[in-house]
Amino acid sequence: MSILLSGCWPAAEQQQWLRLLQEALPGEQWWLAPPSDASEAAQVELAIVANPEAGVLQGLPNLRLIQSLWAGVDRLMQDPTLPPEVPLARMVDPAMNEAMVHTALWAVLALHRGFFEVQTQQHQGLWRQPQQLRAGEWRVLVLGLGELGGRVAQGLATQGYAVSGWSRRPADLIDVQTLHGEAGLVQGLDAADSVINLLPLTEQTRDFFNAARFAAMKRGASLVNLARGAHVVEEDLLAALDSGQLSRAVLDVFRQEPLPSSNPFWRHPRVTVLPHCAAQTDARSAAAVVRANVLALRAGQPLAHLVQRQQGY
Amino acid sequence: MSILLSGCWPAAEQQQWLRLLQEALPGEQWWLAPPSDASEAAQVELAIVANPEAGVLQGLPNLRLIQSLWAGVDRLMQDPTLPPEVPLARMVDPAMNEAMVHTALWAVLALHRGFFEVQTQQHQGLWRQPQQLRAGEWRVLVLGLGELGGRVAQGLATQGYAVSGWSRRPADLIDVQTLHGEAGLVQGLDAADSVINLLPLTEQTRDFFNAARFAAMKRGASLVNLARGAHVVEEDLLAALDSGQLSRAVLDVFRQEPLPSSNPFWRHPRVTVLPHCAAQTDARSAAAVVRANVLALRAGQPLAHLVQRQQGY
Repeated sequence: MSILLSGCWPAAEQQQWLRLLQEALPGEQWWLAPPSDASEAAQVELAIVANPEAGVLQGLPNLRLIQSLWAGVDRLMQDPTLPPEVPLARMVDPAMNEAMVHTALWAVLALHRGFFEVQTQQHQGLWRQPQQLRAGEWRVLVLGLGELGGRVAQGLATQGYAVSGWSRRPADLIDVQTLHGEAGLVQGLDAADSVINLLPLTEQTRDFFNAARFAAMKRGASLVNLARGAHVVEEDLLAALDSGQLSRAVLDVFRQEPLPSSNPFWRHPRVTVLPHCAAQTDARSAAAVVRANVLALRAGQPLAHLVQRQQGY
Repeated sequence: MSILLSGCWPAAEQQQWLRLLQEALPGEQWWLAPPSDASEAAQVELAIVANPEAGVLQGLPNLRLIQSLWAGVDRLMQDPTLPPEVPLARMVDPAMNEAMVHTALWAVLALHRGFFEVQTQQHQGLWRQPQQLRAGEWRVLVLGLGELGGRVAQGLATQGYAVSGWSRRPADLIDVQTLHGEAGLVQGLDAADSVINLLPLTEQTRDFFNAARFAAMKRGASLVNLARGAHVVEEDLLAALDSGQLSRAVLDVFRQEPLPSSNPFWRHPRVTVLPHCAAQTDARSAAAVVRANVLALRAGQPLAHLVQRQQGY
């Protein structure tokens, strides 16, 4: 099989991916850019991509699968030349799932137990014990109950937190209060001490966290954004933090990345800036995931983790 | 029954404890200081204590149980007037156990995922993604496998960490590599990326973390001290941090508390200072624990969580 591997990444990262993918799929022909020769381009059946440059995937007439190495495909789908009929699979990597659950758990533990404030107080030389609530007295709302959101909700419930989960359509999860629709959203935002965003980015969810949504939250609640920067209206978040409506934000993603040095989040005393490190695809386990989908493609079996193009995720 | 409640605490805290204990044990006679009248002192059968002043428990000839409200009894046992024949029970509080597991988990997640460094980098305006290792690639050594250490070790194993546990005597825990004795200690310290201290404080464990122990640790490892300040030789820890032998310390306890403002830990860039807040007894659940022991005392049944005086814990 002739395979195109294309992404926006440093050369060393590309080299590591190529090595691991070649080990997982030995004996294939690999391209790091679309072949200029039309007959060679016609042989490319698989594109493995990591937010490639727009236009890279056109001119491959016999492409049978576009396999993303990243979980989020919102940027990929903004490419108007993306072949509309070719199945598109996103990455579901067990190591990335573990990392996301751990980042969410770290953030919620720190919010619930007051460890962010304790660290600020250390800089001020202040010895002040925070109030110790039980986990069951701390309600967390997880927005988005897909692969990542569902796992995060369950992981928090296992630690004893009072967990609610909201999704567009009804869902069912053990030990999690599931909510849906606009009424469920209002109910969930009103009750949560911490809100974790793991929604997909679509036209419906862009600017989801705006002034009205912050106003619907419980006073003094905190926001953990682990999804996409474009979910949050940054000015509205700053206003909600400065008015005390929100007590803290833990942000892994931003409208512009790397976060520009002029952005006030860097220096805000109640904002924790993570450099988009909540959960990265682990090339070692992801190569095995790609291999499994390639074997399914060859065997004519169902492909895993296909994106519903009209839904956007 | 006549009960003495005595501790070193603020008046509001004493009042809260008294209220909850009176609810749990209605109809008893309560004393907040030893009765000066000998016949009244002779009626006191139970002392509920929270590090009381030395000498408070002498002169109570018919005392049948000393119930500590705190898990650690090292300070209590330094009182030479402590009646030697009276059973002494320490507190094992489910809410405190949960809090300790959560604090340990928060610290290990932050160490493993580089979140402490990320927070330092935020202050420097630096966008730099830490390396993302899997939990199974991060070895944690828990020292002390008692009520708290055992739970912490299992909680970390549940999150996928490679966990070793060391105790004086052989122990057995699911999904935890258990070690004991001096050879086990050397093996454990040599392999661990993070070491969590949950040892009891005894004459054998005082100054446990000294220059020799730090030298036996893996270069670049981190220390999380959740037990007692006197376990750590502070100068040796600072030297190990400054030489790079240790990469970071998360300290909840100190030789002197509150930590004096002159102590260099406050300002050390690789030390996280917690104000002895890793796990506090929760008065609500602890009152029920006290009640259960009082009912056992009355019924002549075995008392729970008795301290082995000669071992010191």
